[in-house]
Amino acid sequence: MGYSEVDQKAINTIRILAVSTSYSRYDTHRFPSGDVDATAVPNSGHPGAPMGLAPTSHVLFNKFMHFNPKNPHWPNRDRFVLSNGHACVLQYTLLHLFGYALSMDDMKAFRKLGSITPGHPEAHDTPGVEVTTGPLGQGIANAVGLAVAQAHSAAVFNRPGYNLFDNYTYCIFGDGCAMEGVASEAASAAGHLKLGNLICLYDDNHVSIDGDIKCAFTEDVCARFESYGWHVQHVKDGNNDLEAIEAAIQKAKEVTDKPSMIKITTTIGFGSLLQGTGGVHGNPLKADDTKQLKQAFGFNPEETFVVPQEVYDLYHRRSAEGAAKEQEWNDLFAKYAQEYPKEHADLKRRLSGELPEGWEKCLPVYSPSDPAIASRKLSEAVIEKIYDVIPEFVCGSADLTGSNNTRWKKAVDFQPPCLGIGEWSGRYFRYGVREHGMAAMMNGMAAYGTMLPAAGTFLNFVSYAAGAVRLSALSGVRVIYIATHDSIGLGEDGPTHQPIETLAHFRALPNLMVWRPADGNETSAAYYSALTAKSTPSILALTRQNLPQLEGSTIQKALKGGYVAVEAENANITIVSTGSEVGICIDAAKFLKEKHNIVARIVSMPCFEVFDTQDKEYRLSVIPDGIPSLSVEVMSTLGWERYSHEQFGLNRFGASGAYKDVYAKFEFTPEGISKRAIATIDFYKGVTVRSPINRAFQQLI
Amino acid sequence: MGYSEVDQKAINTIRILAVSTSYSRYDTHRFPSGDVDATAVPNSGHPGAPMGLAPTSHVLFNKFMHFNPKNPHWPNRDRFVLSNGHACVLQYTLLHLFGYALSMDDMKAFRKLGSITPGHPEAHDTPGVEVTTGPLGQGIANAVGLAVAQAHSAAVFNRPGYNLFDNYTYCIFGDGCAMEGVASEAASAAGHLKLGNLICLYDDNHVSIDGDIKCAFTEDVCARFESYGWHVQHVKDGNNDLEAIEAAIQKAKEVTDKPSMIKITTTIGFGSLLQGTGGVHGNPLKADDTKQLKQAFGFNPEETFVVPQEVYDLYHRRSAEGAAKEQEWNDLFAKYAQEYPKEHADLKRRLSGELPEGWEKCLPVYSPSDPAIASRKLSEAVIEKIYDVIPEFVCGSADLTGSNNTRWKKAVDFQPPCLGIGEWSGRYFRYGVREHGMAAMMNGMAAYGTMLPAAGTFLNFVSYAAGAVRLSALSGVRVIYIATHDSIGLGEDGPTHQPIETLAHFRALPNLMVWRPADGNETSAAYYSALTAKSTPSILALTRQNLPQLEGSTIQKALKGGYVAVEAENANITIVSTGSEVGICIDAAKFLKEKHNIVARIVSMPCFEVFDTQDKEYRLSVIPDGIPSLSVEVMSTLGWERYSHEQFGLNRFGASGAYKDVYAKFEFTPEGISKRAIATIDFYKGVTVRSPINRAFQQLI
Repeated sequence: MGYSEVDQKAINTIRILAVSTSYSRYDTHRFPSGDVDATAVPNSGHPGAPMGLAPTSHVLFNKFMHFNPKNPHWPNRDRFVLSNGHACVLQYTLLHLFGYALSMDDMKAFRKLGSITPGHPEAHDTPGVEVTTGPLGQGIANAVGLAVAQAHSAAVFNRPGYNLFDNYTYCIFGDGCAMEGVASEAASAAGHLKLGNLICLYDDNHVSIDGDIKCAFTEDVCARFESYGWHVQHVKDGNNDLEAIEAAIQKAKEVTDKPSMIKITTTIGFGSLLQGTGGVHGNPLKADDTKQLKQAFGFNPEETFVVPQEVYDLYHRRSAEGAAKEQEWNDLFAKYAQEYPKEHADLKRRLSGELPEGWEKCLPVYSPSDPAIASRKLSEAVIEKIYDVIPEFVCGSADLTGSNNTRWKKAVDFQPPCLGIGEWSGRYFRYGVREHGMAAMMNGMAAYGTMLPAAGTFLNFVSYAAGAVRLSALSGVRVIYIATHDSIGLGEDGPTHQPIETLAHFRALPNLMVWRPADGNETSAAYYSALTAKSTPSILALTRQNLPQLEGSTIQKALKGGYVAVEAENANITIVSTGSEVGICIDAAKFLKEKHNIVARIVSMPCFEVFDTQDKEYRLSVIPDGIPSLSVEVMSTLGWERYSHEQFGLNRFGASGAYKDVYAKFEFTPEGISKRAIATIDFYKGVTVRSPINRAFQQLI
Repeated sequence: MGYSEVDQKAINTIRILAVSTSYSRYDTHRFPSGDVDATAVPNSGHPGAPMGLAPTSHVLFNKFMHFNPKNPHWPNRDRFVLSNGHACVLQYTLLHLFGYALSMDDMKAFRKLGSITPGHPEAHDTPGVEVTTGPLGQGIANAVGLAVAQAHSAAVFNRPGYNLFDNYTYCIFGDGCAMEGVASEAASAAGHLKLGNLICLYDDNHVSIDGDIKCAFTEDVCARFESYGWHVQHVKDGNNDLEAIEAAIQKAKEVTDKPSMIKITTTIGFGSLLQGTGGVHGNPLKADDTKQLKQAFGFNPEETFVVPQEVYDLYHRRSAEGAAKEQEWNDLFAKYAQEYPKEHADLKRRLSGELPEGWEKCLPVYSPSDPAIASRKLSEAVIEKIYDVIPEFVCGSADLTGSNNTRWKKAVDFQPPCLGIGEWSGRYFRYGVREHGMAAMMNGMAAYGTMLPAAGTFLNFVSYAAGAVRLSALSGVRVIYIATHDSIGLGEDGPTHQPIETLAHFRALPNLMVWRPADGNETSAAYYSALTAKSTPSILALTRQNLPQLEGSTIQKALKGGYVAVEAENANITIVSTGSEVGICIDAAKFLKEKHNIVARIVSMPCFEVFDTQDKEYRLSVIPDGIPSLSVEVMSTLGWERYSHEQFGLNRFGASGAYKDVYAKFEFTPEGISKRAIATIDFYKGVTVRSPINRAFQQLI
């Protein structure tokens, strides 16, 4: 305790810097009227929350958090997540003041093209930003994942005298995050998991974009978090009472068997003439307001972007303490290498993102004589092999363990040991029916650096998690979505559970691989690809129903994303398909030959995104010029035009019934495919056919 | 109060019928081994929850609910929602026993192709099913929407002596729903809105698919609902204590200033040898278990699908009371017609789904000399016109009112009057930052029959609501998603907020219209289309930035979904575009003419789905044979191949910066478009070009 004038000056510096950064954007007059309309311009900036949160963040960063700005990747650093990412000017200000590689010029380039200070914090852009936030509710769920990863890593790697992992995860969230379902899901999970290393600070400022939250949000947030099993405190004057903020965080650290939530009542835009109103939520301050604010806080109103040297000195001292902490840790880790060489090597390797050498040898390989197996079971077979070889691989399910086939036989659940049903070192996660929370938690777990998370739900319900899947892709984390029951082939559950649009949705999402394997070898390839993609998430779309092992498949071929499963001389048509339909297409080729003397070659295309990275020559060898191509997939045809001239799919909802009946109803049978193949051949008769692989120009990447 | 033997018999009949219905499915042995694997088969059925819920549903349906099976559309019926839709055999059983048009043969056809008893309840398939449930968490959120609609309709239509609308909404939900974020969001909103007409029964059976919920879900659900502002009760023995169930529901009805949640502790699979375990969640009972169950409940184990006549009699008496209630209501409504002819006519019209005659005359019409305006503002202009003419139109936002421009100036908020900030008759909804809850509530509001709900968020965050948007489409309700900030054109907020995959996602979803208007007339057309589509939801993708009024646009042309915005003789290329890019394409055409003497015709394609319904001749007139076409849209190109030979889009994430800078970075400028137009023309030189409108075969619809 004990705060002096310099603390107050530091706090006011944060406030003024937040205002200036927003203001500078407003002040540039870059948008003549008619270009962006007047109401839109002030939508940049969001100075209000940073001004209200300055005391909290000062106490948190300067009294509690351990970090080294010179090495933002120190594994045992305390993690900080700004869940209300629109207040990122606060985070950028702190990073700058504490000496991260974020200069005053970077501050001035706030929200400008090419800057490292974008409109919302992005993990890969800005040193010191742990996770990408802004879409509300995600950050706090990421924080739960980061805390999970700490607990797990401590259990796996700590040894007596070697507390390699004992960091805390701190998260600031606002009313917007508190309203989002994804945050509710993750908070409920965190309470169940008794994550004592997680401390969340709720910026209780009563204002969101629509103004006073009394118009929409009158629940008792503290009571809600208590119902989840959190330890809850309330700091009544977050604007001034630094001692109370410190005491609450200190208390939260001491509560080790529950996550902590501290509601800190603040005044949004503290010090502004509009403080406490919606006027400072998303609007930069007006010139006269900025002037009076600077005067009131003892700053020269004629100067901007000024930081008193004693504030830099104060914060750099703290950073130096962090650097010293890291040095201690490095020394400890060096000693650990002597005493626990195996664990040391494992941890070093994990942090590098590389998998253990030769791991891929364990992947199951199939031949056509092997029995027909559902790809969710083939996925289970992969998991049974890799869990032992890749110790950072963890898995789980949103309450569909038996259906997703995501749990290996010897798996131990990740649970607080006091529950008697698992261990912190457990690698299987019971996420509950919380798809969105699960995905957002996985993003946090992957960001920690020591875990490679995978988890299952039905493909249709990956859509519930779309907000978090998008951030997996945008932030470039390696997470694997095991998405079973991937089509109308799930049968009886019916249209509410049968995906139609889902693959098109995720194929359109950049930096995400969507795999839909057709058999065992392709399933192994899908895992190989997903597990080795260091900065790309994957969705594996897997069947409920059994699939035959294909004649022409190998892991190596499948790893090209698309390949010729059945080649044929003088073919009349190329049929391109994925997953459960490839086998039916092969039957269709036989049917076409027998009944119509038509020769079809069959291409399996388990992953568009990987196929697109092959050279053109290869892609043209798969889908050649000269003959038309037909795609076959039991869902939306949208996007298939890239790989086929004609498309057979399902641009309507499915039906409840036995899967064979449903397939027959929609004509996904050798006969139904043949009919369309013949129509395609007829349609292209006499036409010089150019493969859709040929394009007039390259897309921007 | 006072329950006799026949009540118990009725309850046991429900249990046995649920078991038989699931069992019959299991018993058919339609799936030889290797077809669907053994673990999959029993995944049908879900007898456990129906067996546990039989007493609750008996009391609810036979003592409280008012309904007339002969007219499932009686406007003032009590609404029932089975949020745990996998337990639909319970709902089908009740519908059958009470005399809805659901026969014993329909029961026997459970989960068979073409039956009205699909694997999850679907509103359009089955008389008496109010909303489509199964995807967990949706039903309870729909129930909140139904209760909102009741409160609103009562405020609008009830008059002294004419309580036209005083129904209750009852909802059963289970642990799975309780875990889902969408349910949390809607429950928090319901608490804020003090919906005293909403009574939710929580089937507290401690079992979900992964087994005992203690592995994932240990929060205090009652305390959570209390924190939301709900009235909460607990019935400790839901298996036997009918009096306690009745007393709790009675008490809940009496609490009129809060929604009610009654936790009813039940035993899943009550009476089964496996009762209380995960073994009865999704698995039909084994033969010996069914036998002992029938014996224990006094049924002949050799018979199936047997209903004692006294049970039919009991339930049909209740149904007759409901029919009499409806008759009373009809008489009241006839008197209402005399005293309040205007209100009567309005209500009758609303229930028919027709809009007021001539309403469309109010739609704004623009000419090219009108100023450039952002389409979110053009949308606001439509709303300012239609709110007065279409009284069932209600609007709202997920806490982005000022950014979505969804609120008309004279709007009154829908709020409990005691808060002093709105009225039950208010037509503007403050949903809070709860996109998924908002969408699911709208599905319920639309299902009630008297409201036409629209609401806004950023296009990127419609993805948070994907689960509910899917059900809007599947259940065929008229809801309108006002999705502003529809592209990288939002600028500074950056990639976390800039949609790339979103339009492809929703274009791939059946029975949904995605509109992306290019100017004022197209915005009016989009509203016309969305407002008149009685059983199709719409997403209107709208810009943050200003758009010029196009030379060639009219409402009539835009209503075709795609049309020629700029025609040209002897054109070299057709450029197809949407929304904010159409104007840039028109500039590109000028640039091409001036700099390269290339003639481009420009097509605006605001809605794929509507364009697809035009006859082929028209579509070919828009995208003709003979010249190549290029599509231009600043997001994923996926799916554009249907309407163009070459695609210019953005298959990567965007960037934070001033919108003009971002557009320039990605070359969405007249120059950038021209470059690609020239490449396209060159690529097709010497090739006989067939329009992509020509297809080899029709898709199944």
